[in-house]
Amino acid sequence: MDIYPLIMSQGELINHKSLHFPIEERGLQFGDGVYEVIRLYNGSFYLLKDHIDRLFRSLEAIKLTIAFSGDELASILKSLVKENKVAKDSIIYLQVTRGSAPRTHFFPEDVEPNMYAYVKPVPRPIDKIKTGVSTITHIDERWKNCHIKSLNLLPNILAKQVAVERGCFEALLYGEEDKLITEGSSSNIYLVKNKTIHTHPESNAILTGCVRNAVKRLAENLNIPFVERAFTTKDLVSADELFLTSSISEVMPIVKVNGIQINDGKRGAISKRLQEAYEEDALITSLKKQ
Amino acid sequence: MDIYPLIMSQGELINHKSLHFPIEERGLQFGDGVYEVIRLYNGSFYLLKDHIDRLFRSLEAIKLTIAFSGDELASILKSLVKENKVAKDSIIYLQVTRGSAPRTHFFPEDVEPNMYAYVKPVPRPIDKIKTGVSTITHIDERWKNCHIKSLNLLPNILAKQVAVERGCFEALLYGEEDKLITEGSSSNIYLVKNKTIHTHPESNAILTGCVRNAVKRLAENLNIPFVERAFTTKDLVSADELFLTSSISEVMPIVKVNGIQINDGKRGAISKRLQEAYEEDALITSLKKQ
Repeated sequence: MDIYPLIMSQGELINHKSLHFPIEERGLQFGDGVYEVIRLYNGSFYLLKDHIDRLFRSLEAIKLTIAFSGDELASILKSLVKENKVAKDSIIYLQVTRGSAPRTHFFPEDVEPNMYAYVKPVPRPIDKIKTGVSTITHIDERWKNCHIKSLNLLPNILAKQVAVERGCFEALLYGEEDKLITEGSSSNIYLVKNKTIHTHPESNAILTGCVRNAVKRLAENLNIPFVERAFTTKDLVSADELFLTSSISEVMPIVKVNGIQINDGKRGAISKRLQEAYEEDALITSLKKQ
Repeated sequence: MDIYPLIMSQGELINHKSLHFPIEERGLQFGDGVYEVIRLYNGSFYLLKDHIDRLFRSLEAIKLTIAFSGDELASILKSLVKENKVAKDSIIYLQVTRGSAPRTHFFPEDVEPNMYAYVKPVPRPIDKIKTGVSTITHIDERWKNCHIKSLNLLPNILAKQVAVERGCFEALLYGEEDKLITEGSSSNIYLVKNKTIHTHPESNAILTGCVRNAVKRLAENLNIPFVERAFTTKDLVSADELFLTSSISEVMPIVKVNGIQINDGKRGAISKRLQEAYEEDALITSLKKQ
């Protein structure tokens, strides 16, 4: 699971040991930055454009401008993969912060953003997507702008840790008052009832996943109704199927919530059909797109 | 405003150029850490024990344990100041993160926390505390655990930046629904009406400032009623006095909110008395405490 030796820093490819941040770095001191985690299958990008587009939306939301266009950034990331001779299933972690400057809350002037990216082998969760995973529910304690993929991830971490300590894979976050499921600590969440998929609509309460958009497209191709309407913690236990998505987890069935088995405790039929469609889209189409 | 050359890293004093973080650092990637900014006057600590105690409360809240006791940490910070021959008015920035480890949301096992601190000259805001400052109000967009002094500061930064772009010093944050003022983006906020000081009570909606606690103590010594009850955005404009506190801003009068002058637009009598008491406490008592 070591990272590939070449990383991207400020648009250039360098050896990862050459990257040094000064102490007063705004990512480190404020979480003043945004990021993406991008999937590679057999060394080929999946949903690259969607990730780059979302990065630029996040940058705009925190009023941060970089010296690269989306196309230039995509081209740099492709070089990074090529020069590292990446052939395995991997991820790229890409981060942009407001830069290094004497610590002030307000934006420093004339500071160059810090941008870096690295590639790391991450295998597909082949077994888990068949058996499904257990989850807990957890209050959503995050800020009001969760549509920004920011580095302020402490509430996500703390929720995920509670899940892991209870032997679970993910925490399903819900509003303290309305009990509506927003999303997971690092995934989007879906409920299937009467052959219809439900998920939280796009809003500042969730991060619209790139895999979420892909699953929406795939469901539409398969003529499976896809309804963007939130559901509550109570709805979970009577679901026909539950699943989550993320760039690393793909389409992952949820078979337990807070120790309660969902339906027959096995991967559901719609989850399985979406997985097959995902695999085709990711493994075949992504290769063609290169 | 350069930092002093010696910094503390993992409890040791080293040259600041020797500090290098690997790419996968949890402060940098998640804001998974906490911090303190501690005041030094003429090279002597003010409220050191309060800051150290709060650091440990923050650490506990994010389930992070360090290998040092509060007394040991205080002793290390004193060495840092002594070895750098700090004589000016300065601040210490102290940060602890969960450490460097391959990126996962859940806590990595067997990882040593990263702790560092540096000293930087920061003059007292001598002029501003006489003339007072202008402010804006801004929706409080932060998470539900603001009592933790965490590195997740993006909402604070974005609010402060709006203030600065409008020529103001601070953003007074308020609840979107109840309109109650919680605190500033990097300060606590107080309203004086009928010779009584009001401020938001301790809760997870505010960070209880060390200077806030000092001001509470000083007000009680001066027999000025100090009421821990929140007030609304509407209450601001009819205040007799408004002020804010922080380790850097001390007791700072607020003379304008959203362009509206507060009272006669000058530092109020109670603000001035608290400033005098603060100065005595900080500049005389702190020297004795060394």
